[in-house]
Amino acid sequence: MAASEVPGADHVTLSHEQLNVNAAVEAVTSPSCGAVSLFVGMTRDNFEGHRVVRLEYEAYESMAQAEMKKICARARCLWPSVGGIALHHRLGVVPIAEASVVIAVAAPHRQAAFEATAFLIDTLKATVPIWKKEVYEKGQCMWKENKECSWSKTQEYSTCSSSSPSGVCHVFYFFTSIYLSFLLLLHKYYFPKPSVN
Amino acid sequence: MAASEVPGADHVTLSHEQLNVNAAVEAVTSPSCGAVSLFVGMTRDNFEGHRVVRLEYEAYESMAQAEMKKICARARCLWPSVGGIALHHRLGVVPIAEASVVIAVAAPHRQAAFEATAFLIDTLKATVPIWKKEVYEKGQCMWKENKECSWSKTQEYSTCSSSSPSGVCHVFYFFTSIYLSFLLLLHKYYFPKPSVN
Repeated sequence: MAASEVPGADHVTLSHEQLNVNAAVEAVTSPSCGAVSLFVGMTRDNFEGHRVVRLEYEAYESMAQAEMKKICARARCLWPSVGGIALHHRLGVVPIAEASVVIAVAAPHRQAAFEATAFLIDTLKATVPIWKKEVYEKGQCMWKENKECSWSKTQEYSTCSSSSPSGVCHVFYFFTSIYLSFLLLLHKYYFPKPSVN
Repeated sequence: MAASEVPGADHVTLSHEQLNVNAAVEAVTSPSCGAVSLFVGMTRDNFEGHRVVRLEYEAYESMAQAEMKKICARARCLWPSVGGIALHHRLGVVPIAEASVVIAVAAPHRQAAFEATAFLIDTLKATVPIWKKEVYEKGQCMWKENKECSWSKTQEYSTCSSSSPSGVCHVFYFFTSIYLSFLLLLHKYYFPKPSVN
């Protein structure tokens, strides 16, 4: 394994390709770090009794990358001994038993590496704007912001034919149309045309 | 990544070859597990102010493998949801920034995977009969049982020319020579030759 030339660097990527765990380890490895802790999130074949056939991920990419870099910085404040950090997230279709996210953290000793890894996956799921669609075997699907996310508004189950309706877009259009209707009514009844003298 | 055919299996190996983190992930991956937690232990270039140039590992192999299987079983008792477990330990020379141990644990959810991984590396270091020699840049070296091991008797620093003196062998020969000297003295003073009539 090649040692990273910049031991304290953050390696943040969003990619439509398969993730490589060895590459994440290589990115964070340095001669001064004796421990690398990793978390790999996989597509599971079930969710609350439903048979899942695949996941599909979408992200607001520039915002997601900026947020991922912020949580790396927060981890470094909390565990100053941490060396390299890799946050690699896959987008698009992720089949069963393939990785959607790989997190690797190097540190001189394992305690800091373990704690920072747990913090990074918890915080990534809570704050980074990445949505996933669970596709079930009977053609149903569900778009989700992360279940653990404070601003999550998970959509109800629906039979979907379109390939990429975003939950956030639906919510946005719904509230925008209500707001515009309200403005029209306000204009009609409370601000009548001035009379011509 | 291929999903493991036996999701609940233990994959325990001792090897003189370089360890492969992707292989450990593949060994434990299964369709029902959404989380894989890993720990990779690397050779660090320093120890308590000494510049380390390499590590060398020796094991009582059959006993080490049996002990590694035992700690997998203990982890399964403590975290029954755990799927595959991989414990891969390298023996012989491990250069700086290469892996000496890779632990991978799969589980449906990440909490169990994280906790089991931390337990496995703590317990492996405390109970498995694997010794390491730290070789320093000025030709000094030190054989160690693990520092965290309850029965550890780390040897003093010594300038070594031989390539594989084991700490355990030194202790064994020392106590054997004391025991034999004691037997000789006992025989000479308390069991005198019978007189000839």
